[in-house]
Amino acid sequence: MEMHSYVTGLTDGEGCFSVSFSKRKKMVLGVEVRPSFSVSQHKRNRELILSLQKFFGCGGGRFSRADQNYKYEVRSLSDILAKIIPHFDTWPLKTSKVNDYQAFRRICLLMKQNRHVQPAGLRQIIHLASSMNAAGKRKYSPQDLLRMANKMKV
Amino acid sequence: MEMHSYVTGLTDGEGCFSVSFSKRKKMVLGVEVRPSFSVSQHKRNRELILSLQKFFGCGGGRFSRADQNYKYEVRSLSDILAKIIPHFDTWPLKTSKVNDYQAFRRICLLMKQNRHVQPAGLRQIIHLASSMNAAGKRKYSPQDLLRMANKMKV
Repeated sequence: MEMHSYVTGLTDGEGCFSVSFSKRKKMVLGVEVRPSFSVSQHKRNRELILSLQKFFGCGGGRFSRADQNYKYEVRSLSDILAKIIPHFDTWPLKTSKVNDYQAFRRICLLMKQNRHVQPAGLRQIIHLASSMNAAGKRKYSPQDLLRMANKMKV
Repeated sequence: MEMHSYVTGLTDGEGCFSVSFSKRKKMVLGVEVRPSFSVSQHKRNRELILSLQKFFGCGGGRFSRADQNYKYEVRSLSDILAKIIPHFDTWPLKTSKVNDYQAFRRICLLMKQNRHVQPAGLRQIIHLASSMNAAGKRKYSPQDLLRMANKMKV
């Protein structure tokens, strides 16, 4: 088995690239940007989740009691930049999930340049994120986020 | 990309091995056994479904209006034996879906030996199938099927 290709196939099926936002007074613009790459599996596939942690050399597995799922997740920006993005650039996704990935990738590169703590960069990130995971529900609409970000002095 | 490994990863995510039964007076035991391998995707990934048809050299894609999904499906026993089973024997699944696959595989091999038109073979197939896809719903319970099969004269 060629594991890189297997992992891309599994991710096309069960993976998720997401960027969430939360209100944080401590942050320069009052909004925290949190990218996350995850793969979910029923708890009976805990071994596979642990093997992803080993494969990528980062991230962790955790159990969600709510849906009885194990989730492999990487939230660290430096791990995402060093390990997740190089993988999916070299072994690209084949489903429309590639569009989520491309937006996710751009957001992470903007964060690397500290653009998320500048109003124009944060606005760009909010716009990119609003195109992702169309079916999911969000706590804040892009309009809410822009309002939150704009209220803060820089 | 190594396509064999990719396809196994995608199948661990989105594939389904199933065996369904239907009442058919024409069949020797009054019960038809229908194995099926399928991979479902949102209609936006129609291209990927078509590429699976090319990859395996069998099966077909069809659109389900109900859930707006494209489904790649192989129902032909000879194609399953010649193309699907050799693939998953060589590039094995890593999730618990492998258990469904093993039952599916045994059923297809029994059918190859025409065991599904003999009462003992059909009973064995019904038992194997009852262990598969625990979450799915079935038109007939194993008990219903055994009753249907036993009623028929051979």
